[in-house]
Amino acid sequence: MDVDVDPGREAPVYFEDIPVGERWTLGRVTLTEADVVGFAETYDPQPFHVDREAAAESPFGGLVASGWQTAAACMRVTVDGFLGRAAALGALAVEDLRWPNPVRPGDTLAVDTEALSKRPSESDDSRGVVRQRTTAANGDGEQVLHWESVVLFARRGAAE
Amino acid sequence: MDVDVDPGREAPVYFEDIPVGERWTLGRVTLTEADVVGFAETYDPQPFHVDREAAAESPFGGLVASGWQTAAACMRVTVDGFLGRAAALGALAVEDLRWPNPVRPGDTLAVDTEALSKRPSESDDSRGVVRQRTTAANGDGEQVLHWESVVLFARRGAAE
Repeated sequence: MDVDVDPGREAPVYFEDIPVGERWTLGRVTLTEADVVGFAETYDPQPFHVDREAAAESPFGGLVASGWQTAAACMRVTVDGFLGRAAALGALAVEDLRWPNPVRPGDTLAVDTEALSKRPSESDDSRGVVRQRTTAANGDGEQVLHWESVVLFARRGAAE
Repeated sequence: MDVDVDPGREAPVYFEDIPVGERWTLGRVTLTEADVVGFAETYDPQPFHVDREAAAESPFGGLVASGWQTAAACMRVTVDGFLGRAAALGALAVEDLRWPNPVRPGDTLAVDTEALSKRPSESDDSRGVVRQRTTAANGDGEQVLHWESVVLFARRGAAE
């Protein structure tokens, strides 16, 4: 797996720093055939993920990455390019996780993020809740992943 | 990772065979600390997934599995116990993916499934669309994972 994160934009740290309504590209990730088959042998051994010949006969016409691996690979870009600097405390939920197009070995996916909304936590003054949309597109510009996550971040005052 | 699938119930094969409204346990999966850290180093290197000491200082109080790994591990049980025999053609979407409680190394998760509804595909006579709920619980009976997926299956007539 090849991961490459855009250095252009400084990631936010605290809840207060997260911009709402701005979308930007965090970086890119590429899965090799060995990555695709290796992940699927452990976590998702369906024929179109693990067996080149069976995959060629499937509706996909060839090996495709497990959707869970696509999501996890985009998570890696999100951690390296965004959450790694942020005071992120974990995701509560992911909604509307979709794979509109398959990911094939060698495809380079560009991962975008956008905070859709944010609000202080009702139960804990030291935290805030951010709704974030993550998308990924292949080299042809086709969307291959979409999710909206609800993520907890530390508030600035609480950590100081 | 240790996977153990219940042999008690024969998995369905075609769309027509899938029972709606019945919930049953597919099997169990256990992640070791090496599994948790190994996955997270590649896909989700947040401190509470990869660094035992940092995790002890985090709100989790110790290492916890990446939510993406928990989902992938439950997918493995689902493939071995259900989809592997079925004429499954891939998931269109996952909705309402949640992790109500953390998964710690050594926890054994029991994975349940239930088809909530099914309908023939509107665009392709040879396929059917099933809405399926997957849940997992730890040894204390606490739910650690919930998702609802929309999965394509082949129809019996189409494959014969």
